[in-house]
Amino acid sequence: MSQLDHKSQAWSALFSEPMSDLVKRYTSSVGFDKRLWQADIRGSLAHAGMLAAQGIISKQDHADIQRGMAQITQDIESGHFEWKLDLEDVHLNIEARLTQLVGDAGKRLHTGRSRNDQVATDVRLWLRDEIDAIATLLAELQKAMLDLAAKNVDVVMPGFTHLQVAQPVSFAHHMLAYVEMFGRDRERMADVRKRVNRLPLGAAALAGTSYPLDRQAVANALGMEGLCENSLDAVSDRDFAIEFTAAATLAMVHISRLSEELILWMSQNFGFIRIADRFTTGSSIMPQKKNPDVPELARGKTGRVVGHLMGLVTLMKGQPLAYNKDNQEDKEPLFDTVDTLKDTLRIFAEMMAGITVNPQPMEAAARKGYATATDLADYLVKKGLPFRDAHEIVAHAVKEAQGKGVDLSELPLETLKGFHALIENDVYDVLSLQGSMNARMVVGGTAVERVREQIARLRG
Amino acid sequence: MSQLDHKSQAWSALFSEPMSDLVKRYTSSVGFDKRLWQADIRGSLAHAGMLAAQGIISKQDHADIQRGMAQITQDIESGHFEWKLDLEDVHLNIEARLTQLVGDAGKRLHTGRSRNDQVATDVRLWLRDEIDAIATLLAELQKAMLDLAAKNVDVVMPGFTHLQVAQPVSFAHHMLAYVEMFGRDRERMADVRKRVNRLPLGAAALAGTSYPLDRQAVANALGMEGLCENSLDAVSDRDFAIEFTAAATLAMVHISRLSEELILWMSQNFGFIRIADRFTTGSSIMPQKKNPDVPELARGKTGRVVGHLMGLVTLMKGQPLAYNKDNQEDKEPLFDTVDTLKDTLRIFAEMMAGITVNPQPMEAAARKGYATATDLADYLVKKGLPFRDAHEIVAHAVKEAQGKGVDLSELPLETLKGFHALIENDVYDVLSLQGSMNARMVVGGTAVERVREQIARLRG
Amino acid sequence: MSQLDHKSQAWSALFSEPMSDLVKRYTSSVGFDKRLWQADIRGSLAHAGMLAAQGIISKQDHADIQRGMAQITQDIESGHFEWKLDLEDVHLNIEARLTQLVGDAGKRLHTGRSRNDQVATDVRLWLRDEIDAIATLLAELQKAMLDLAAKNVDVVMPGFTHLQVAQPVSFAHHMLAYVEMFGRDRERMADVRKRVNRLPLGAAALAGTSYPLDRQAVANALGMEGLCENSLDAVSDRDFAIEFTAAATLAMVHISRLSEELILWMSQNFGFIRIADRFTTGSSIMPQKKNPDVPELARGKTGRVVGHLMGLVTLMKGQPLAYNKDNQEDKEPLFDTVDTLKDTLRIFAEMMAGITVNPQPMEAAARKGYATATDLADYLVKKGLPFRDAHEIVAHAVKEAQGKGVDLSELPLETLKGFHALIENDVYDVLSLQGSMNARMVVGGTAVERVREQIARLRG
Amino acid sequence: MSQLDHKSQAWSALFSEPMSDLVKRYTSSVGFDKRLWQADIRGSLAHAGMLAAQGIISKQDHADIQRGMAQITQDIESGHFEWKLDLEDVHLNIEARLTQLVGDAGKRLHTGRSRNDQVATDVRLWLRDEIDAIATLLAELQKAMLDLAAKNVDVVMPGFTHLQVAQPVSFAHHMLAYVEMFGRDRERMADVRKRVNRLPLGAAALAGTSYPLDRQAVANALGMEGLCENSLDAVSDRDFAIEFTAAATLAMVHISRLSEELILWMSQNFGFIRIADRFTTGSSIMPQKKNPDVPELARGKTGRVVGHLMGLVTLMKGQPLAYNKDNQEDKEPLFDTVDTLKDTLRIFAEMMAGITVNPQPMEAAARKGYATATDLADYLVKKGLPFRDAHEIVAHAVKEAQGKGVDLSELPLETLKGFHALIENDVYDVLSLQGSMNARMVVGGTAVERVREQIARLRG
Repeated sequence: MSQLDHKSQAWSALFSEPMSDLVKRYTSSVGFDKRLWQADIRGSLAHAGMLAAQGIISKQDHADIQRGMAQITQDIESGHFEWKLDLEDVHLNIEARLTQLVGDAGKRLHTGRSRNDQVATDVRLWLRDEIDAIATLLAELQKAMLDLAAKNVDVVMPGFTHLQVAQPVSFAHHMLAYVEMFGRDRERMADVRKRVNRLPLGAAALAGTSYPLDRQAVANALGMEGLCENSLDAVSDRDFAIEFTAAATLAMVHISRLSEELILWMSQNFGFIRIADRFTTGSSIMPQKKNPDVPELARGKTGRVVGHLMGLVTLMKGQPLAYNKDNQEDKEPLFDTVDTLKDTLRIFAEMMAGITVNPQPMEAAARKGYATATDLADYLVKKGLPFRDAHEIVAHAVKEAQGKGVDLSELPLETLKGFHALIENDVYDVLSLQGSMNARMVVGGTAVERVREQIARLRG
Repeated sequence: MSQLDHKSQAWSALFSEPMSDLVKRYTSSVGFDKRLWQADIRGSLAHAGMLAAQGIISKQDHADIQRGMAQITQDIESGHFEWKLDLEDVHLNIEARLTQLVGDAGKRLHTGRSRNDQVATDVRLWLRDEIDAIATLLAELQKAMLDLAAKNVDVVMPGFTHLQVAQPVSFAHHMLAYVEMFGRDRERMADVRKRVNRLPLGAAALAGTSYPLDRQAVANALGMEGLCENSLDAVSDRDFAIEFTAAATLAMVHISRLSEELILWMSQNFGFIRIADRFTTGSSIMPQKKNPDVPELARGKTGRVVGHLMGLVTLMKGQPLAYNKDNQEDKEPLFDTVDTLKDTLRIFAEMMAGITVNPQPMEAAARKGYATATDLADYLVKKGLPFRDAHEIVAHAVKEAQGKGVDLSELPLETLKGFHALIENDVYDVLSLQGSMNARMVVGGTAVERVREQIARLRG
Repeated sequence: MSQLDHKSQAWSALFSEPMSDLVKRYTSSVGFDKRLWQADIRGSLAHAGMLAAQGIISKQDHADIQRGMAQITQDIESGHFEWKLDLEDVHLNIEARLTQLVGDAGKRLHTGRSRNDQVATDVRLWLRDEIDAIATLLAELQKAMLDLAAKNVDVVMPGFTHLQVAQPVSFAHHMLAYVEMFGRDRERMADVRKRVNRLPLGAAALAGTSYPLDRQAVANALGMEGLCENSLDAVSDRDFAIEFTAAATLAMVHISRLSEELILWMSQNFGFIRIADRFTTGSSIMPQKKNPDVPELARGKTGRVVGHLMGLVTLMKGQPLAYNKDNQEDKEPLFDTVDTLKDTLRIFAEMMAGITVNPQPMEAAARKGYATATDLADYLVKKGLPFRDAHEIVAHAVKEAQGKGVDLSELPLETLKGFHALIENDVYDVLSLQGSMNARMVVGGTAVERVREQIARLRG
Repeated sequence: MSQLDHKSQAWSALFSEPMSDLVKRYTSSVGFDKRLWQADIRGSLAHAGMLAAQGIISKQDHADIQRGMAQITQDIESGHFEWKLDLEDVHLNIEARLTQLVGDAGKRLHTGRSRNDQVATDVRLWLRDEIDAIATLLAELQKAMLDLAAKNVDVVMPGFTHLQVAQPVSFAHHMLAYVEMFGRDRERMADVRKRVNRLPLGAAALAGTSYPLDRQAVANALGMEGLCENSLDAVSDRDFAIEFTAAATLAMVHISRLSEELILWMSQNFGFIRIADRFTTGSSIMPQKKNPDVPELARGKTGRVVGHLMGLVTLMKGQPLAYNKDNQEDKEPLFDTVDTLKDTLRIFAEMMAGITVNPQPMEAAARKGYATATDLADYLVKKGLPFRDAHEIVAHAVKEAQGKGVDLSELPLETLKGFHALIENDVYDVLSLQGSMNARMVVGGTAVERVREQIARLRG
């Protein structure tokens, strides 16, 4: 009879009493780590294959293990697998069932490994695949934003600094700023992936093992790019979880910035966009309400992810080598970070496709904020004034226009000439929103020509 | 037919399309906020009672609501209530079912309130009761530590600073340090409770209501100590959640410090204590292991709670008034903080009762670290030397003893006199561990007499 | 010759080599903790007075110490005190100078105390006084907001939820929401102060002392409300720093919310307020800009303070008893938190006094958002409809008005009657912004009468 | 006369009153950002060179700017430059002085740029060079640890899991675990560097510029690898600061783990190492103390850096595009993170070189903890037992040895055979510490042969 059957009574002969029920519940992780079952089985099969190839277990044992795992896979997928709290975690649950199914071969599977290197391997395998899924979702969100941009290249909106109207920009140009951000998120995910995709298995409990394991073969079987080169580090390293969560935090910070803007733009005082009704909610009390719940909730969820990052750092701070039970606490924040980021990216990609842009309020807002004042200054500079002097002259012109309640472009030429004699009739070209926008031809600038180039580049 | 039945199709006539399924899942909170059902029903009954007393609804409506809520309570308790994701949250789930059961009276319950003030009320009611439970658990942990202290007043252990042996202290005195910490945690919980236990109901959506509500009557019915005095603040304030989580964080920091020490003391190099087997675990690979999983996991869970604190602060940072959907994200961290703290306190109270103290290794460690060196300096000061000079003399004596591999108390009198002529035979009293410990008679000091007084005071 | 003079060479006879210069710089704290000098001297004088009263030092020593400290105070105030990095911290700098000035009496000052309890005492004394200063600044900010409120009770602005127009509220009512928040901050500061204002002195290094100190006398001399009752806890407790920083974080979160709103309201699309020019800045490139730098920077500084909170929690997590050098890192975040909060509160009190309210854009925004739609629903409820039915009817009316580009109050009676026959001519009273606002007469509601009462109460 | 001279009076003609002194102090950054002066001048010279090459300014202007900047460089280096709070930041201070020195050419330098893209460029240039310095310091710390490892390959210490003795490992192997960690830190720094080393200049205020700038030429002149491709993103992106701080946080977490171990190992109960006296401190009260201040303080400083990370994330959360004044708060945490990490790495490299290893207490500790128990189990497995059965048998043997107070290797063969008949005399080979250690021949394992290979590889 397997010791695993009565693990709830006592760990080994050294233990004089069974584990307290409270402790069992407190320390059990199967409630959340069963999610790793596929990675656990993949890792075990790669390990078993290598054990057989190295002659550490017999071909028969290997075949038995494969058969048992096939059965377990079927049971879990069909919902018939019985997860037992008493068996603490996903690893012991699967191993105990395997031993039930195939006897001693099941007991031999654990040869040359420990739960310390096993769990590290499982989490890395799982996370690697999730990173790939996230990279795809980021690309889909970028695509949705590029589509929205492509439809609105000519739409002029006020660019803001300090939430004050600054200069006219293309709505598409504004969208592309986020496409850049999500592009960096993809770069970071790719960088993290390299460090996730290394094999801890073979480190055993902490010191390596005396069995002649072929670690490289296991890495190859699992598609991993390298080995964790030090056994103590292999079982205690959680850098990859922290690094991933930091990258996810940045992605959520980008989402929070976009959300803030969508919420502003939906507000009646802006009225820049409409979000499709299926992404908004009403109020149980105020009949006129249409609320941008999705971006608000996403903005709130930024806190959730940064909280996980802080939790993980706190977890690792000051831990002596090698594995400590503290590390069990790495999973829930990591799982929730992945879920939150994936759900959010998915819903944003859909929502961006449901946005309608209202050009008229954007242009009105740009005019109200004297968005072309800098263009007037630049006009004067091109006529020979030092920039600092031109800046001051324009400030006087803005003051005059404000007093009259008009835009700079609505001031008559005589008035403008009163501020500087070099001002001619051609000034009205630079004072138009389109003129201003399209003048910004520098690489990375908002001129329509540049924006179209960027869209083409980013679609590539 | 109630609008609530087809909420999944459209919020109101303003909405041209039903909510997307993705959005429904993303924004739904019933999966976690159903936990508030009791608070929700209590709040609704208090509201309904007041509405009837004020003549806003009829006695018959009130009776119908009471009857319906009794039925719902029974259904939930017996597990027969059907929670619907389509109905978004606990509030709409209960209200929709109430209307099904009692018709228009159910629809009238929401008179003069909104989900904004309703959810704030529910969370406060729920948290208040959890704070009371936590206060009790803190007291129980203090009691367990006092009991352990009382059994070990005479046990001398090395007090550490910088993890270097400093001076001898009573093991009981060391325990009392934690009793003080948990005492402050109780004070903080009591302070937070005052600010939790205030009534938002009556703020309605954000501006108050035109119905002649008697808010004080509702507060009285719910045992609340005051009203939220400004409606905009009432619906958007989440200070209480942050303040509670900050208090919980400190409690967990205390637990993390105690855990660190228990883990150290259990380590073979210390061997100061034994934790009962039922609180330890073994290893799947190393047969000799007995691991202090509970304190390790608790130390790790500190990260979890501080992560929630950071998440909540991030959530609220920069939110304009009044209610925003971001706030829905307040619940999961708050719930998990409560659960984590309660489970941890409960298990620690049990575990402390299962600790056995090993006096011999403690005394050996104290001697090895020259724990009574300060006593020799104090001895010289009492004979007239300035402290700074005595300090230097003793450093020479320690150096001599280290060279010989003996304790100060094992140096012969002649040797000691060689460091200063004022040293007499009575020096050996101050060089004993007990002598040193019991000399620290100042209030708050480690002398056995003082420790007994403190235990008596703390038990009171 | 004092050991203090050659502390840079070696700590005591035990040390075979002087401290490395790199280490000296890394571990020295005098660069920032000299700020505690007044608290350090006050604490030392209270300690010396007690030592003399207890007969532990002579009257002459006491007089010498007083004389020396008077000289040092004068030197520091006049900028002539020479702070030495070699003497590590504020405590040793002052003590070394004292000994230079008054000889052996200076050396005797340290009798019965250690830097561990000394620094804890200094920080508490200093922080207590800063808390008092902060409480005053909070009150001044509240006063400035009450003044602004009092001038604008009748101004109607749109109350927002989800940044969508919700219901009309008094601008004063909106200000009072923040007065409530800052009121809670004052409550929290008062609660923290109780736990700050306790005396660690007497705990000595960690175990108490064998000198017959009268700790209560020292507490009384320093105006402290209690003693730290356990010596190990006394020297290692930094709860008070964390608790204070958590309270400061909440105050900054409130500032960040107010800042967000001021920035929004200053934006051309809102135009709700004007901030006096002396609180704004221009742009080096865009001549038309007037930027709300102060609220933006304050919003940013929220991050700074929450960062300090996170840092302090991380610092304490998992520290074994008693004092560890890690704790030296408590000071800079604490000092910076105090400075940031004080500067911010001071500047906000001034800035609120420089705000001009623009009622016209507020009213226009309220109308644009159908802010009185709920009032129409309530109107129908008072005529007998269940709330949920009234809600749906009004949604239809809003849809109609939106289609026509008018406010509900601009729909003719016949049109309104078309939505429900019970609508009569008196409906136009509830559809006016003032009517809506003033109907919310519930305690805490936005009716002008209630707001005036709240202002009067809060000024009391 | 330059507008810059009276910037303290008013920003431009639009401003009716000078900036309040409080505001000037609150918003000024020159106190800390003057540190960027070299990057600022380098960036300006590259910009000026390009402006001249593009014919936007004259050769004479370019020459004047170069001459002026040379003078300013000399003044700053010699400490004669007068930094003015009134001129707000490093950029305006330098530009104003340049204009004083060279007249209109100075005013023309700002053509086609804004402080928004200028500050982003400065910070990136500065940080890139600091990253290179950090990479070097990480390599030096790795080298110091490799040297220490190379001297102690044969030293057996107990490897720990859960701080319980687990299996024997080479002290060198333990050091190599940290060499791996710092190696990952270097990888991360290299990854961050790619995203830091991109040029924002040319984005101007937010929208790009109408001047025909050659951004690629500026990037080349500054050694930057790419351009920020979207102007709105260029001026508001602070990902690089957050990403760097996250990487620095991980490095500090590694330092905190190493510190924890050094502190433990220095503790009398371990006694595994001695840290050279020049890295330790004594106590002002306890003459026998020798405290590991450096690792304690470093462990504490982990909090500082993670606090900065939290602060920076909070700063960016929810910020709308493009530049907001909040961003000024990015500098102090970033500067302090760089300083803290550099100081800590430098001191650790020195300190590791000053560590003496004590093999005897390490071996004694390993024996006390039955470090070779797993080897006995593996021995039985190699004789044909399933691992799980062998595990249980060894637990019984350990129990017996514990009862007798001896190591497994001290049990007579008959006793061992009593646990399983397959145990032969060769068992004593696997029960020795060296035997156990050297059996772990798997790649990444602790066998001396493997460790030597790793050292050679890592030195390469």
